[in-house]
Amino acid sequence: MFFAGKIMKMKSKKVAIIGASGYSGEELVRLLLNHPHVELVAVTSRQNAGQTLARVFPKFASHPKSKALHFTEPNAERLAKQADVVFLALPHGVAAEYAVPLLDAGCLVIDLSADFRLKSAEIYKEFYAHDHPAPELLKKSVYGLPEIYRAEIKKALLVASPGCYPTGILLPVIPLLKAGLIKSAGIIADSLSGVSGAGRKAEADYLFCECNESVRPYGVPKHRHLSEIEEQLSLAAGVKVTIQFTPHLIPANRGILTTLYLAPTEKAVDAEKFSACYQKAYGNEPFVRLLDGKNLPDTKNVNGTNVIEIAWRLDPRTGRLIVMSAEDNLVKGASGQAVQSLNLLCGFPETAGLV
Amino acid sequence: MFFAGKIMKMKSKKVAIIGASGYSGEELVRLLLNHPHVELVAVTSRQNAGQTLARVFPKFASHPKSKALHFTEPNAERLAKQADVVFLALPHGVAAEYAVPLLDAGCLVIDLSADFRLKSAEIYKEFYAHDHPAPELLKKSVYGLPEIYRAEIKKALLVASPGCYPTGILLPVIPLLKAGLIKSAGIIADSLSGVSGAGRKAEADYLFCECNESVRPYGVPKHRHLSEIEEQLSLAAGVKVTIQFTPHLIPANRGILTTLYLAPTEKAVDAEKFSACYQKAYGNEPFVRLLDGKNLPDTKNVNGTNVIEIAWRLDPRTGRLIVMSAEDNLVKGASGQAVQSLNLLCGFPETAGLV
Amino acid sequence: MFFAGKIMKMKSKKVAIIGASGYSGEELVRLLLNHPHVELVAVTSRQNAGQTLARVFPKFASHPKSKALHFTEPNAERLAKQADVVFLALPHGVAAEYAVPLLDAGCLVIDLSADFRLKSAEIYKEFYAHDHPAPELLKKSVYGLPEIYRAEIKKALLVASPGCYPTGILLPVIPLLKAGLIKSAGIIADSLSGVSGAGRKAEADYLFCECNESVRPYGVPKHRHLSEIEEQLSLAAGVKVTIQFTPHLIPANRGILTTLYLAPTEKAVDAEKFSACYQKAYGNEPFVRLLDGKNLPDTKNVNGTNVIEIAWRLDPRTGRLIVMSAEDNLVKGASGQAVQSLNLLCGFPETAGLV
Amino acid sequence: MFFAGKIMKMKSKKVAIIGASGYSGEELVRLLLNHPHVELVAVTSRQNAGQTLARVFPKFASHPKSKALHFTEPNAERLAKQADVVFLALPHGVAAEYAVPLLDAGCLVIDLSADFRLKSAEIYKEFYAHDHPAPELLKKSVYGLPEIYRAEIKKALLVASPGCYPTGILLPVIPLLKAGLIKSAGIIADSLSGVSGAGRKAEADYLFCECNESVRPYGVPKHRHLSEIEEQLSLAAGVKVTIQFTPHLIPANRGILTTLYLAPTEKAVDAEKFSACYQKAYGNEPFVRLLDGKNLPDTKNVNGTNVIEIAWRLDPRTGRLIVMSAEDNLVKGASGQAVQSLNLLCGFPETAGLV
Repeated sequence: MFFAGKIMKMKSKKVAIIGASGYSGEELVRLLLNHPHVELVAVTSRQNAGQTLARVFPKFASHPKSKALHFTEPNAERLAKQADVVFLALPHGVAAEYAVPLLDAGCLVIDLSADFRLKSAEIYKEFYAHDHPAPELLKKSVYGLPEIYRAEIKKALLVASPGCYPTGILLPVIPLLKAGLIKSAGIIADSLSGVSGAGRKAEADYLFCECNESVRPYGVPKHRHLSEIEEQLSLAAGVKVTIQFTPHLIPANRGILTTLYLAPTEKAVDAEKFSACYQKAYGNEPFVRLLDGKNLPDTKNVNGTNVIEIAWRLDPRTGRLIVMSAEDNLVKGASGQAVQSLNLLCGFPETAGLV
Repeated sequence: MFFAGKIMKMKSKKVAIIGASGYSGEELVRLLLNHPHVELVAVTSRQNAGQTLARVFPKFASHPKSKALHFTEPNAERLAKQADVVFLALPHGVAAEYAVPLLDAGCLVIDLSADFRLKSAEIYKEFYAHDHPAPELLKKSVYGLPEIYRAEIKKALLVASPGCYPTGILLPVIPLLKAGLIKSAGIIADSLSGVSGAGRKAEADYLFCECNESVRPYGVPKHRHLSEIEEQLSLAAGVKVTIQFTPHLIPANRGILTTLYLAPTEKAVDAEKFSACYQKAYGNEPFVRLLDGKNLPDTKNVNGTNVIEIAWRLDPRTGRLIVMSAEDNLVKGASGQAVQSLNLLCGFPETAGLV
Repeated sequence: MFFAGKIMKMKSKKVAIIGASGYSGEELVRLLLNHPHVELVAVTSRQNAGQTLARVFPKFASHPKSKALHFTEPNAERLAKQADVVFLALPHGVAAEYAVPLLDAGCLVIDLSADFRLKSAEIYKEFYAHDHPAPELLKKSVYGLPEIYRAEIKKALLVASPGCYPTGILLPVIPLLKAGLIKSAGIIADSLSGVSGAGRKAEADYLFCECNESVRPYGVPKHRHLSEIEEQLSLAAGVKVTIQFTPHLIPANRGILTTLYLAPTEKAVDAEKFSACYQKAYGNEPFVRLLDGKNLPDTKNVNGTNVIEIAWRLDPRTGRLIVMSAEDNLVKGASGQAVQSLNLLCGFPETAGLV
Repeated sequence: MFFAGKIMKMKSKKVAIIGASGYSGEELVRLLLNHPHVELVAVTSRQNAGQTLARVFPKFASHPKSKALHFTEPNAERLAKQADVVFLALPHGVAAEYAVPLLDAGCLVIDLSADFRLKSAEIYKEFYAHDHPAPELLKKSVYGLPEIYRAEIKKALLVASPGCYPTGILLPVIPLLKAGLIKSAGIIADSLSGVSGAGRKAEADYLFCECNESVRPYGVPKHRHLSEIEEQLSLAAGVKVTIQFTPHLIPANRGILTTLYLAPTEKAVDAEKFSACYQKAYGNEPFVRLLDGKNLPDTKNVNGTNVIEIAWRLDPRTGRLIVMSAEDNLVKGASGQAVQSLNLLCGFPETAGLV
């Protein structure tokens, strides 16, 4: 918390969050309040406009800024004057409305919604059931998965930060596809998510008593996140990839555990190939933890951090490769990853504010 | 609930439970204390010997019998004199020791362990890492899945009641295999279990703080339950079946949710075929609930009951069939199913004591 | 469980539930569907009108009646023709609207709301902030705490079934006050409630992520339930009683644990006096479990049952009496207790449908 | 995380943790790994000796030190050579064995056990049922509650860091007692603790299924923590104080919520007096959050932080003062508070490593 001398000479950036009252927004507030190179200058929320951060989120009330910073109505013009970088933590379809004027005004934009994650406006329409509000931006946006698109993010003006499920699937699968170690057909992803993934919506389905002592699949068989997952996997594989994806809701606040069922190719002559592939892809990544020995991923070991855990087992009985990942859906699956992109965009150390 | 007149003339049976202090044992106690045609005459537990039911399980203390019935040391000879039917809720390897003398003494035996679920002593040894203690009984035992082996159970002397994971997998898959609607190769079962499945063992892994806010796979890739699952599926398919099975531990007391990934055959010309198959197999089963409309299984809708919920979706994008089931691991997955077998064995109504 | 011969000749009653879609209503449905002397003829719910029980509550879908019984709009006139007894599981202020015409039409009414629990319309207005909608009925209603008002309930036309917190406080305290063993001044009740006590309201405060890993007091210092608690304690003490009551929300679905801090009088010469008092008051009560030995109440031992557990300790260091109770807020604290009153009203065995 | 320039010139201290495998020890590891002025040089654990931090606690595996640092057997002589400051996270009775040689060797010692919290060896024996192992140290130790004993801690050689329940009771009560605003007699503290308070003991009582959907009091009426609570309150009041204390176990990992029932004196002429007293005592404390407006403490707002929340209400109906506090039992109630003392001992900023 005492960031003195040389490091503070790094030019600090002014940042704003539009839509800071949901779970991702709240997590962004937490990370940005404590980020060494960032000044959080504005937070917006229609429902909380006029109130201080301390009032809306009592848990931040001990931070000196929490009583000075008031939620405001979202106003792109005003925010563009205040901030160098703006995070959008808004529902899909709404985020685009703000991205356009902010970019025009010269802000860097990091969008946590699904609005700019796809390259194709048609696929957007197929999965989100309305026309894309700013299709011209789809080509300019960069998919904010730093382990895959680090170079592109550094130069981006608009980062489309990935969804929580996609992160837990793409990071384990992309290196294997790129290395040709698994077949691009027949991929199955079975994911278990804590309830914060549903957002802070006052709906009966997410009441404590409806989720506690309950486990249930949902969105079977066509979940919206499939669109960005398949687009990214297709890019990695060089062919169109269609996957099977089943999300489940489990009684935990945070964390996504994904189990992937994959078919090795002939190139995958032994289990060591997979280890070597992962080591090469992620051996030096600060936020990817490759598990060795008997360890398997566990959401409790990543919750509250920007780390994704990955483990893999080749099943000699079936010949199938089982890959498992665990991440905090609100950190590596949302706000932490967005801050990782911020660090890249602004030339900060990639781990700043994240460890 | 309406056990009038004729039914009460039904001859009541004396039953005992060996190993009544674990979670399955406790659930058996609950069911048998309230069973209309059964008198619970003995409960055994090494650690609780000498104590009353009321003392060991305060929640049963309001039942008139709970203060009269004392836990005893397990003694097959004595129990054989007291009881007509004996339930074994013991660890695998131990159950067989009691089954032999009890059967010799003329008792009916319902075993909740894995000891008599397999037909092959070799496979037992492969999965359980020791010689089978009573291989001659393997041929005599009946696999206690009433929806599949109702006729055999009625005539059985020794019922091997299925495990919790097998029940949640076998009931949805067997009818499809028998009807030739799915391929026998490539079956994947991804299961999520509440913590009671681990038993009442004082191990650090199952402490509240280790399980709460945690989701984790375990036993990857070769879980012991695979042996009985594959044996039963092979019997249904008529060919040797090898499946992929991944169990996960989720922070709930009870309930198993299983998601199955299956490949339809050419016989499965449309989605209706599956519905028809399930209707034919289970349309009249009191404890199988086939979900229609948009409903998907949810453990909270079956917990505390002997019901298994099943839903299915044919994914037009992948051509795969997704089948999902939910059951209470301690009831339909253990003690309730064992009582269902008791009812068949003794000629009671199949739902007696279970609704 | 043994409802043979004579009992089945008992005339069965037709019952209806107005407001059957909340948690208390749902629990009433569960109990009444399985009650041996009752036919559930109608369930109402504005939001679910037209749908079957099976659709709204999948967990009841295996009951034969669940597909035949449709939710209807609440219509007192029609319901009065269908049912002998009507349960009102409605918000306070609304229940009274239905009670008046139903009573006029000759139905027996069991109200689970707060509308008829007080004798004084003034106190009602003080605590509920509006005029009582049917003050003339306050004198006719009987407070539905069977252990205290059994004789009155048997003859009642209108039963005001107690709230969940009041039940957990009144049953432990009333016998001590009546016996003069504790002072009527200075009573403190500290209660911990599962989240179902808040009802099935889609409010952000009761979302899973807001309740899980959270413990919080609320309604300090003047909770509405104080009015009925104090009125009943005053009746028992013969003087006006004012108590301190602090409710807390804890991350569990069900259960209320109450810790009471009481001051013994000079009559309480030793700890035995309290045991004797409780034995006399509740020694033969089927739904009160007096704990002995080292046992302390635990909500997990009463959840799903109509039992209240009570334990007490005289602290030699402070001279204070600590009394602790545990109950299921939806059963003994709501719907189970209402069914207990139904049994008394209709001349059924008091435990019918509750064990 | 980038503590450069002037601040890094602050002399860094070498610290060790004896008993680092329990929940408090693990939390100490987390805090000390990330502390800007501290080098964690040794962690001990009998059961994990030889293993790396990364192996024992996978969640720390991304920290560069986690693979270099191995657990060792506890050896006071060796540790005294390695470390300037040693934390003892050991069971009571064991901690003293290490404190004596470490102090003799010139180390500063911060003990998280109960061994040095009392001034009186007699009271220790009364509550802990064995002779104090090093009574001569009782006079030298300082009770590590920084908000009360800041000056003394700065000069201490041996800090006895308070227990979790005592912290949640003492911080709210001491200022009121010192100011004469509440009576010293009749204090009641009703506390609700998450399960981590029971430690990482493999006992059946703390298994997930025994704690989830359960709420229960325990240790009624004489809990060991009473001894240090009463000693500290007596010091604040200037007279011997005896309190009523009831701990409860609730189904959460972390957090203690305490509700205090207090009797105002005649000096407490209005509610403002209490607010003024708390403002004076804690208005500038970085880790005490005085709640205003309608806010009440909630463990979810303090979990993971070193903050204690305090709110208070004067009940006009009873004349009683209700004070409520919330803290993370493992941070402000244990390891965070111990690090706060470390900061004072070593002349670091008091909040270093804690925000």
